[in-house]
Amino acid sequence: MKRYERLTEEITASIRSGLLQAGDRLPSVRQTSASRGVSPSTVFKAYYLLEARGLIRARDRSGYYVLRAPHAALPEPDGLSSASAGRHPVDVSDNVLQVLNATLRRDMLPFGSAFPSPSLLPYGRLAKFMAASAQRLDPWSSIDDLSPGDAALRRAIALRYLADGMSVPVDDIIITNGALDALNLSLAAVTEPGDAVIVESPTFYAALQSLERNHLHAIEVATHPREGIDLQALEAAIVQHHPRACWLMTTFQNPLGSLMPDEKKEALVALLTRHGVALIEDDVYGELYFGEQRPRPAKAYDREGIVMHCSSFSKTLAPGYRVGWVAAGRYTRRIMRNKLTTSLATAAPTQAAIAAYLEKGGFDRHLRQFRQALAQQQGELLQAIARYFPKGTRATRPAGGYFVWVELPAGIDTLKVHRAALGHGISIAPGPLFSASGAFGNFLRLNAGHPWNPEMEQGMATLGKLLASSPSRPNP
Amino acid sequence: MKRYERLTEEITASIRSGLLQAGDRLPSVRQTSASRGVSPSTVFKAYYLLEARGLIRARDRSGYYVLRAPHAALPEPDGLSSASAGRHPVDVSDNVLQVLNATLRRDMLPFGSAFPSPSLLPYGRLAKFMAASAQRLDPWSSIDDLSPGDAALRRAIALRYLADGMSVPVDDIIITNGALDALNLSLAAVTEPGDAVIVESPTFYAALQSLERNHLHAIEVATHPREGIDLQALEAAIVQHHPRACWLMTTFQNPLGSLMPDEKKEALVALLTRHGVALIEDDVYGELYFGEQRPRPAKAYDREGIVMHCSSFSKTLAPGYRVGWVAAGRYTRRIMRNKLTTSLATAAPTQAAIAAYLEKGGFDRHLRQFRQALAQQQGELLQAIARYFPKGTRATRPAGGYFVWVELPAGIDTLKVHRAALGHGISIAPGPLFSASGAFGNFLRLNAGHPWNPEMEQGMATLGKLLASSPSRPNP
Repeated sequence: MKRYERLTEEITASIRSGLLQAGDRLPSVRQTSASRGVSPSTVFKAYYLLEARGLIRARDRSGYYVLRAPHAALPEPDGLSSASAGRHPVDVSDNVLQVLNATLRRDMLPFGSAFPSPSLLPYGRLAKFMAASAQRLDPWSSIDDLSPGDAALRRAIALRYLADGMSVPVDDIIITNGALDALNLSLAAVTEPGDAVIVESPTFYAALQSLERNHLHAIEVATHPREGIDLQALEAAIVQHHPRACWLMTTFQNPLGSLMPDEKKEALVALLTRHGVALIEDDVYGELYFGEQRPRPAKAYDREGIVMHCSSFSKTLAPGYRVGWVAAGRYTRRIMRNKLTTSLATAAPTQAAIAAYLEKGGFDRHLRQFRQALAQQQGELLQAIARYFPKGTRATRPAGGYFVWVELPAGIDTLKVHRAALGHGISIAPGPLFSASGAFGNFLRLNAGHPWNPEMEQGMATLGKLLASSPSRPNP
Repeated sequence: MKRYERLTEEITASIRSGLLQAGDRLPSVRQTSASRGVSPSTVFKAYYLLEARGLIRARDRSGYYVLRAPHAALPEPDGLSSASAGRHPVDVSDNVLQVLNATLRRDMLPFGSAFPSPSLLPYGRLAKFMAASAQRLDPWSSIDDLSPGDAALRRAIALRYLADGMSVPVDDIIITNGALDALNLSLAAVTEPGDAVIVESPTFYAALQSLERNHLHAIEVATHPREGIDLQALEAAIVQHHPRACWLMTTFQNPLGSLMPDEKKEALVALLTRHGVALIEDDVYGELYFGEQRPRPAKAYDREGIVMHCSSFSKTLAPGYRVGWVAAGRYTRRIMRNKLTTSLATAAPTQAAIAAYLEKGGFDRHLRQFRQALAQQQGELLQAIARYFPKGTRATRPAGGYFVWVELPAGIDTLKVHRAALGHGISIAPGPLFSASGAFGNFLRLNAGHPWNPEMEQGMATLGKLLASSPSRPNP
């Protein structure tokens, strides 16, 4: 734990214990720096994090004030979570798709949703850029730029990599129909039907669906709820199953929210490079960090071009625009060719609109506000879990993104709870969606991407009751 | 041949022979009706067709005048064109992709292009609808309508089917990233790796690329340059190879331009239904007819839901918008599921813009002008072929679309001519692109989708010289 993290935890404990109460003024940065014997920048980092978590707030010139008590100390799942290790032919049932469809309904409380609230995204502002760029669009460009995509957008993405300290050649960037298209193209670039592919356990259900569609086998590898996939287990799986690729989320993993530390990411890339296994890195939540800096992707440590870094603007700016990309390293040429033969290209007007917005729209300002909202909402959600869910419930507390992974007492069947909750107008994402082997029956993923309101509070209370009355085992 | 077609041919012959010359007034509809003993409506149809072909033009209230002489009588390829029949594992080489990339370059004369000239498409008008609808876009709709797509757009498409006399349920329509996405989703819905799929010979190269990517075998079946795939050969291939699907273009086939007559389409659907083979119908050129009425797709005869009818707005309105669809019959559910797991959805703003344009933008008016331009350009292209290409050259004369398929004297190698032409800034689409077996070495496809100009005339003259000097056989 770094110094500012320790300080953050200590202040959080002081607030939780009642030593510091809502409205209290925190000691100034200078005072705290002196009293704790740490640098002012360490104190700033801690205060920044506390603010991002919605526990304190800065007032102009007068310092920092306590805003509210943190959620009750909810234990985190600890140790490695894992489905039964092994080689699974993937069969994601229609049942699971019905779960997904329910989460898309506007009349449902969106705890099961994969998206943040549109109310937190700058649709109106983006639409202005769309209007302007649609009228400026050179008709020929839609043919010229078919693939790899809009030149200005690819340059803007390369500049963002550069700002994060990564040098990714513009020529390696291919624009796709959202990240899912990027991930699928990456998968197709390195696999043949029947191949094995390593995923985390639990993993994003879309990865399982893609493997299923491409006739691939999923190797689910034990994953730590805070630090990501276990490298020892990963190496053992590589030796045993000879996979062609890993499909991993190293930053704010869906559903765990785990964030692999930098040195572990470096070791991961070294390990895969050594074994000649490609890494498909799904990094769609990387911009949604609550700390000070964007976590580096594994791609930052990629010297041989084995990492296909996939991301999009769907979780940060505009889900409906379907604009994503892959920085594809040594697989660039192959992916560009596959893109041409699958959907030819990504829509030109949406690319142009996002390129113009990135240049002048204030994306970073939007992201700062968005991250702060997400951090605060995560706090509300965790508090509600602590308040309403059965004793013994555990939950992850990710340092970014908008998912919380909840472990319920053994025996609770979240697929059944999901069906009961639908009747109350509540969607959740039951654990078995996140494994090809149907594990995680007593887990669920909750969405913290929506501004908290009384209906959501009520919904969590209802969920708590449903969980309490859920039969521990299927009826005999 | 119908009455109006016979009349059209007779008048064309009169113009060609010099009996009627540029500037001459044609007899009035009433006079011709009386003199030929046909109904006035037959005369109207003939005059309409002659006008669409750019041979005559109506002047307000004063009747029809001869515009220009038709191209010299260029013989059409006759009989069935076919690659060596048989089961081909598909391997479309990188070489072929380089051909395609060359055709996308703006500095090339676009005879090899797959697109019409953007100057013939209403980009400016569409951009106005885009600007308006982007600002009106409900942020939630982008999540609600993820798949199957924008509700207004799907309804507008269903209404266009209805106007053409077909009843396609809105619920069967899935919006896709252009027609290519629709075709690929259709293919994935009915095949497993290793399966056989029937295509025309020659066939659209994207079909071959899709089969290759999906590890499928292409069965190339003999196809008539005017009337489409040969049903007898098709049935024999079905019995021999047990294909899971046919991927066909029944209307203005790419590259032949063939148009399967209605009764043949009906027989095709009956045949496939009987054998339990799905039909993937690529109908992207169907709106670009030079006659009076949109040719009916095979889908119009589909009673059992075995036809997946795929089309788009990419050839008629806006290539860069990447909006297409499939009316998927009994495969709707499966395709909707695959769409969710491949690219999740099609971009919302482009869908909304096209929906608004279809409602109020004047699509049908644009199409009328566009068709007339294409018909006239086809005439220019055919004349230039007759003028500059070697003796013995044959060319199809499709009743719609913007491709002409050219058969050159045996021994000419159009892949070599393609490479030589690039050096002169001219792109062509060499015949071997259109077959998995590398057949059609002395064929090429030319694009008539661009307004004729002196550079194109000069380019055709240059092509003619390159063809004349092409070695008949590879050097020993």
